[in-house]
Amino acid sequence: MTEFAFTLLGQDGAARRGRITTAHGTAQTPAFMAVGTAGTVKAMTADQVRATGSEIVLGNTYHLMLRPGADRVAALGGLHRMMDWPGIILTDSGGFQVMSLAKLRKLDEIGVTFRSHIDGSAHHLTPESSTAIQHKLDATITMAFDECTPFPATPDEAAASMRLSMRWAARSRAAFTPRPGYAQFGIVQGGIYPDLRAESAAALTALGFEGYAIGGLAVGEGQPAMFETLDATTPLLPATSPRYLMGVGTPDDLLGAIERGVDMFDCVMPTRAGRTGRAYTARGVFNLRNARFGDDATPLDPACTCTLCTRHSAAYLHHLFRCEEMLGPMLLTGHNLTYYQALMHGARTAIEQHRFAAYAAAARDGWRQTHD
Amino acid sequence: MTEFAFTLLGQDGAARRGRITTAHGTAQTPAFMAVGTAGTVKAMTADQVRATGSEIVLGNTYHLMLRPGADRVAALGGLHRMMDWPGIILTDSGGFQVMSLAKLRKLDEIGVTFRSHIDGSAHHLTPESSTAIQHKLDATITMAFDECTPFPATPDEAAASMRLSMRWAARSRAAFTPRPGYAQFGIVQGGIYPDLRAESAAALTALGFEGYAIGGLAVGEGQPAMFETLDATTPLLPATSPRYLMGVGTPDDLLGAIERGVDMFDCVMPTRAGRTGRAYTARGVFNLRNARFGDDATPLDPACTCTLCTRHSAAYLHHLFRCEEMLGPMLLTGHNLTYYQALMHGARTAIEQHRFAAYAAAARDGWRQTHD
Repeated sequence: MTEFAFTLLGQDGAARRGRITTAHGTAQTPAFMAVGTAGTVKAMTADQVRATGSEIVLGNTYHLMLRPGADRVAALGGLHRMMDWPGIILTDSGGFQVMSLAKLRKLDEIGVTFRSHIDGSAHHLTPESSTAIQHKLDATITMAFDECTPFPATPDEAAASMRLSMRWAARSRAAFTPRPGYAQFGIVQGGIYPDLRAESAAALTALGFEGYAIGGLAVGEGQPAMFETLDATTPLLPATSPRYLMGVGTPDDLLGAIERGVDMFDCVMPTRAGRTGRAYTARGVFNLRNARFGDDATPLDPACTCTLCTRHSAAYLHHLFRCEEMLGPMLLTGHNLTYYQALMHGARTAIEQHRFAAYAAAARDGWRQTHD
Repeated sequence: MTEFAFTLLGQDGAARRGRITTAHGTAQTPAFMAVGTAGTVKAMTADQVRATGSEIVLGNTYHLMLRPGADRVAALGGLHRMMDWPGIILTDSGGFQVMSLAKLRKLDEIGVTFRSHIDGSAHHLTPESSTAIQHKLDATITMAFDECTPFPATPDEAAASMRLSMRWAARSRAAFTPRPGYAQFGIVQGGIYPDLRAESAAALTALGFEGYAIGGLAVGEGQPAMFETLDATTPLLPATSPRYLMGVGTPDDLLGAIERGVDMFDCVMPTRAGRTGRAYTARGVFNLRNARFGDDATPLDPACTCTLCTRHSAAYLHHLFRCEEMLGPMLLTGHNLTYYQALMHGARTAIEQHRFAAYAAAARDGWRQTHD
């Protein structure tokens, strides 16, 4: 039986090059995880997601408990089988989505009661039930149930919210069934307050998780505050465990967080942007709906290996978006994920070769070439 | 240089087994052509269309002249290059779409003036301009510009409409630039009146096209009248040229038309149905939104070779449609096209083996197994 493991393969300053080993295969870190909220990375087949270089896909407890339901996913053989993704799956605990999507939320010590944003049906989510649902989904990596502290929050508000999350983390840990090759990550909270982040990191490391996430960032605090919080937090997390910055971010956010010792990321940006015509490239972000692409017979990104860039012109993509053809989002989502994965691949190689700072500087220079 | 050719490889009653040779490769007939109206088969990459077994893709003059424009397609290397389909492309002449989609249409002897349904801009389409646009698109098979006679039409109305189309066919033929491996098809009109169909077939064969289409059917006359019209028409067309029944149809329509000597088909049914959750299978048509598929862990069609049927359960597809995930239309469009192509493949083999009647009877028995 494969045990869950994080192997540190190299380091360049605080930037880490690693490998995660699980019951569902391995993933190289730093890793960007493609978001597959409801059991599908939007506009992509599983084969297409694999082809972008993605090794981990995210699922979401909140969405999947409502549709198709955790028992139904389990009856279909689990999320891996259902979505044809035998690789690693990490599931969000549902806490963040309940607070951002559900109606008539009521939060107390026990957990959260809410009504579905889809049909208004009543539901309850607790550290125990969230952990049980993630087990039914067959998540390779289960996330502890937490409250994502809103921004802005006073020190008192952030402390109370973080301490609730820490009590929930203990209950999540107790509810987790260890299985070889499976893992559970705790989530550091505490807003932008270093002392609260330190208290949270201490509480979680005392509980002992297989990995540690940093939550409650990229919620409006801005990149400088996010980086300061990372600077205060990552040194407090065990060097021997993977570190996951939740919901982040732009390519520049990713490089900055890697510089600060983060190993894993997830974000809807590349997939969401792919559906609205925004392209991430080595030369910056472009809006393919812009008329100037109408006659552009060149590939969107000549260096890119995706289907869009190797087979089609930017003008064709522009045409597809103008006509609202589904192939536009399909091709551009594939491109954006390929770009994110290529950026991560480059980062991994640069860390191995102890030239990460130069790699990040060159990438940032490239993005400044063009403004859209 | 490859010359355009139709080779008759076998016959079983009136059903024909053939091969079309063109500048852009060959196609086996009977052939179902996937509809790619605006330069994309909706919800499919070109590779995915190829994987269904499709050898010919349709484009549409009306849509493409409006967006992205014929000159722009030409500047991008033609439709083959633009949409990554090096295979055979047949373009509709635009006549049918002008009458069904455009605004403020005015038809006279010269052609049709109309306003775009997209932005209201004024356009003119004639036999000459339609043929020139199809040349710019680099269509392997150009269609003559015609008026699709509405249904119902009196004999006088149908005769007047057909005779206008025949005068337009002569002008289309004169405007066509012969090129090795390229073809132009004339379109038989005449409504449901055998004498008018005969007059039309005589007019077109006198002009001498590389292939002959049968237009003005599947417009409300019903399957019995359509089959009667085919019975009266196909024997009047040259045995040495391909015959194309435009805009048809259901799997049962296809088999009935093949029995009557038709070689080529196009229809939006499999692709449109794929976007709305309707599945064509050997056991009939199913609506995947139906709740009974929610727990169905079996493949939609165990005999099917498509990504959906080999990798996923019917329950997953149901889930995707309930959540309005783009992957639902993507997977089901692929399945429906694969089913249509498998039906054509089976028909071709059955004709070769002189058992087409038994093949058609068995297929029809299968469709009757389940009602939805």
